[in-house]
Amino acid sequence: MTDKKKIEVCFTPATFPYFKNDDAIVVIIDILRATSAIVTAFMNGARQIIPVGTLEEAMDYKNRGFLVAAERDGIVRDFADFGNSPYNFTPERVKNNDIVYSTTNGTNCIMMAKESYRVLIGAYLNHKALIDYMVSEKRDVLIFCAGWKNKFNLEDSIYAGSLVTDLLKSDEFFTECDSAHASMDLWSIAKDNLMGYIDKAAHRHRLKRNNLDDVMEYCHTFNQTDIIPVLKGKYLVELSNFND
Amino acid sequence: MTDKKKIEVCFTPATFPYFKNDDAIVVIIDILRATSAIVTAFMNGARQIIPVGTLEEAMDYKNRGFLVAAERDGIVRDFADFGNSPYNFTPERVKNNDIVYSTTNGTNCIMMAKESYRVLIGAYLNHKALIDYMVSEKRDVLIFCAGWKNKFNLEDSIYAGSLVTDLLKSDEFFTECDSAHASMDLWSIAKDNLMGYIDKAAHRHRLKRNNLDDVMEYCHTFNQTDIIPVLKGKYLVELSNFND
Repeated sequence: MTDKKKIEVCFTPATFPYFKNDDAIVVIIDILRATSAIVTAFMNGARQIIPVGTLEEAMDYKNRGFLVAAERDGIVRDFADFGNSPYNFTPERVKNNDIVYSTTNGTNCIMMAKESYRVLIGAYLNHKALIDYMVSEKRDVLIFCAGWKNKFNLEDSIYAGSLVTDLLKSDEFFTECDSAHASMDLWSIAKDNLMGYIDKAAHRHRLKRNNLDDVMEYCHTFNQTDIIPVLKGKYLVELSNFND
Repeated sequence: MTDKKKIEVCFTPATFPYFKNDDAIVVIIDILRATSAIVTAFMNGARQIIPVGTLEEAMDYKNRGFLVAAERDGIVRDFADFGNSPYNFTPERVKNNDIVYSTTNGTNCIMMAKESYRVLIGAYLNHKALIDYMVSEKRDVLIFCAGWKNKFNLEDSIYAGSLVTDLLKSDEFFTECDSAHASMDLWSIAKDNLMGYIDKAAHRHRLKRNNLDDVMEYCHTFNQTDIIPVLKGKYLVELSNFND
């Protein structure tokens, strides 16, 4: 019928098993803030990112001399070097370093997807690079929203819609996925006033209560870098270094 | 802060555990076709509906003399009296009868929600009655979309948005739920051309392939009855008979 490749969108880790497709490129999205922070770390010269799920693992890496970004509920942990905000990943701190990034949700998503053809880290910040790569690869795409505690969230879902919309502009893709259609419709409503739209999002209010919403505009800024972080074994590296 | 009651929307059974709220009224939605068919059966005089999950259970009831509606992949099962379409539940067949309705997805949702304050069966067909009841009860509301094989689906999600939109017109409710906001936005796009919108839905195409889409318009028709089916023990009865 068609040799086009399919696009699907998974709104939460709880439904990932029903979308599992090991031939696909999986793009993980956690706009506020894990994937935005990871892209930023590479922009500023980080060599590798080691995503860990628990604070115990993060502490273990710290004891072995690694730089560690770790916070919970908006508070930097005592043992950590800095917190999880993209603003913490300054060139002074990260350039040529390996960084441990502690994130329950994001790490969980990466581990769930690790059997896939590629696991990419996606954000507004590297949007065009993601699109160009996926169009050139001509493979199925599964956009994997981290959500919030296994629930759907708005900020990841609308960005998924932006990705689907731009992928479909090439002739390589089609979608019959209801969540992909929904994400495009949400994006069509949100795109002309992103900050106003995102103000509805529950997680935005959680960040605001913790005075962490200074990164809102930054995390919703398109195309600041061509770098695509990709999973290689247990580490994230730049896609351009994937075959080294 | 507020004594308003909260509205949440759960897009798929896979995420129901993260929304579980035993004080809430849960409205189960499976527009194509289980909840539309169940409402229709009561409109046409059915006394009780017995939802069962497996064909084995359905067959067991059949052997005990019950009227059984059962199909899989659009084909009525040999042992059953008729299939699962709303059009099968004619007054001639169902009036004053107990009916067994075999539906994997719908029955699963009902069982997951059974500890809740009330489990209601919702559809466009009984929309206004649902809204009036929930406004009068002044309790938390959890709208539970059956989805499709644990994935998000468009037809249930947009109807969830219609319910949320109308509930918020009363002063009794608020929502901070991202999926509730998303469902309202999708409803706002879909509502003026429901059939055109739903044409995107994957499940609509599945029904079409099986020549089962004759019920599309009927299942998207508002306010054909004031009857609200409610779970009482293992059976669905009319809400007006709940306390009998």
